[in-house]
Amino acid sequence: MRNERLQQFLAIHKQKIDEALPQHIQKLQAPESLKEAMVYSLQAGGKRVRPILLLATLHGFNQKEELGIDVACAIEMIHTYSLIHDDLPAMDDDDMRRGKPTNHKVFGEALAILAGDALLTYSFQLIAGLKHPSITSEMKVKLMELLAKAAGPEGMVGGQVSDLDGEGKTLQLDDLEYIHHHKTGDLLAYSVVAGAILANAEQAEVDNLHAFAKELGLVFQIKDDILDVEGDEQTIGKPIGSDEDNNKVTYPSLLTMDGAKAKLNEHTSRAKEYLYKVKMENSLLEAITEYIAERDH
Amino acid sequence: MRNERLQQFLAIHKQKIDEALPQHIQKLQAPESLKEAMVYSLQAGGKRVRPILLLATLHGFNQKEELGIDVACAIEMIHTYSLIHDDLPAMDDDDMRRGKPTNHKVFGEALAILAGDALLTYSFQLIAGLKHPSITSEMKVKLMELLAKAAGPEGMVGGQVSDLDGEGKTLQLDDLEYIHHHKTGDLLAYSVVAGAILANAEQAEVDNLHAFAKELGLVFQIKDDILDVEGDEQTIGKPIGSDEDNNKVTYPSLLTMDGAKAKLNEHTSRAKEYLYKVKMENSLLEAITEYIAERDH
Repeated sequence: MRNERLQQFLAIHKQKIDEALPQHIQKLQAPESLKEAMVYSLQAGGKRVRPILLLATLHGFNQKEELGIDVACAIEMIHTYSLIHDDLPAMDDDDMRRGKPTNHKVFGEALAILAGDALLTYSFQLIAGLKHPSITSEMKVKLMELLAKAAGPEGMVGGQVSDLDGEGKTLQLDDLEYIHHHKTGDLLAYSVVAGAILANAEQAEVDNLHAFAKELGLVFQIKDDILDVEGDEQTIGKPIGSDEDNNKVTYPSLLTMDGAKAKLNEHTSRAKEYLYKVKMENSLLEAITEYIAERDH
Repeated sequence: MRNERLQQFLAIHKQKIDEALPQHIQKLQAPESLKEAMVYSLQAGGKRVRPILLLATLHGFNQKEELGIDVACAIEMIHTYSLIHDDLPAMDDDDMRRGKPTNHKVFGEALAILAGDALLTYSFQLIAGLKHPSITSEMKVKLMELLAKAAGPEGMVGGQVSDLDGEGKTLQLDDLEYIHHHKTGDLLAYSVVAGAILANAEQAEVDNLHAFAKELGLVFQIKDDILDVEGDEQTIGKPIGSDEDNNKVTYPSLLTMDGAKAKLNEHTSRAKEYLYKVKMENSLLEAITEYIAERDH
């Protein structure tokens, strides 16, 4: 039952985000080739986890989801730019993502770099230009400041650099958690916090939701690592064991599979503890947490 | 006399910017390797034209320059990120800039891409986090919205893509002006407009200053093209005739050298006309305009 409600929420709101993203690009006064490259990667699929987290948070504060669609799009643009740059030959050198050729394979490296830069920059333009009457200038400043922290040198980009720095070195659990917290956790956590800001939640609620979402980010990552060993190749959409082949340090490689699963349960429980402290209708966020911990892809 | 005052203003404020830029990076909670790569390119010299334009505008409205140092740094970070990405092998493939190895030659391509991304993102964090009591949230939102427009797909990145698209094609004067307006003009114009916003200038003044700065951007670019043919190699710091060697379309190649000089005078006059409409003490901006039109490097 709970799961049915979640599936319905995911389906409806994923579609809204899928529709809104290309519309934001089409209206730009910019070269068609650039817009095409931006839209290509925005439409390359993806579960829209970050937008869904934002919208589910708004929902939990009894706010209309419409209030958050544009910020959710801005976050998805940041996530998409990071994938485009990550896939470049100088970085992970990936030819395929989610079953489609990567941006630089289709548009060339120069345009791929610029499409990433454009998505990153435009995400701030989108938030600064929000027109909804209940979104104040103070909220916009907060949304942009925290977005820049989550995405920039103190967040996602910092995590990517730590990941680069760690290549070929023996990492400990602390190092691995630092990388994940910043490389993927900060933007996931921002998605929840942005929903709370838009809902005008009190600072104590924002803080607890932030702690919840940081735990959720680790749950997400540990589960990814587990699926890379135990998952079904068809279901998860990439070869099983690719982390091991790439000599990547993972939770199972550091802690054994049993240890990784214990860690998954530990962070899932802790995420829920923080969530239950928040004065909100939490059933959707709770269901998303369970879904992320128990998913098979 | 006027020129002496300008030289003094340039020297004092260039130094302030040179000092403030690395301080902003050092205080970041980010991997040292990333901070090193960011600081390297911020310290690789440069005339600090954009910060100076912002501070001279503030000065003309009788405001303390301190009010604008951080926004001036944010603009210089955006300019620097664009140079780092421009120099990459997939883009212009330049090994040297201003007599120093380019970022990717020192730090590798992956870190250079990430250092550019970090500078771009951090520039918004800096503006969002401004603490000066006379800078309101409304001002910050305006500053960030216009910065994203000037730097993103509708501005600088759009201009770079047009430039890419134009390679190997026969460009007309219209195409050339479109590229320059966006690739370099928009961020120069933003620098002046940001100064006016910080000074809380009225919209009519902001509009005239914007028109002034767009003309100034063309003056800057036409003069660059002229110097590439007529300049002294030692003084301008790059080989004479490099545009012709690279088959670059320039003002002299489209209009003859006499035509380019006439165009330079035309845009210089028009820039001043707009400037004289603004209710402000305009002597510094006037001197900068003349300096840009008459410089020998």
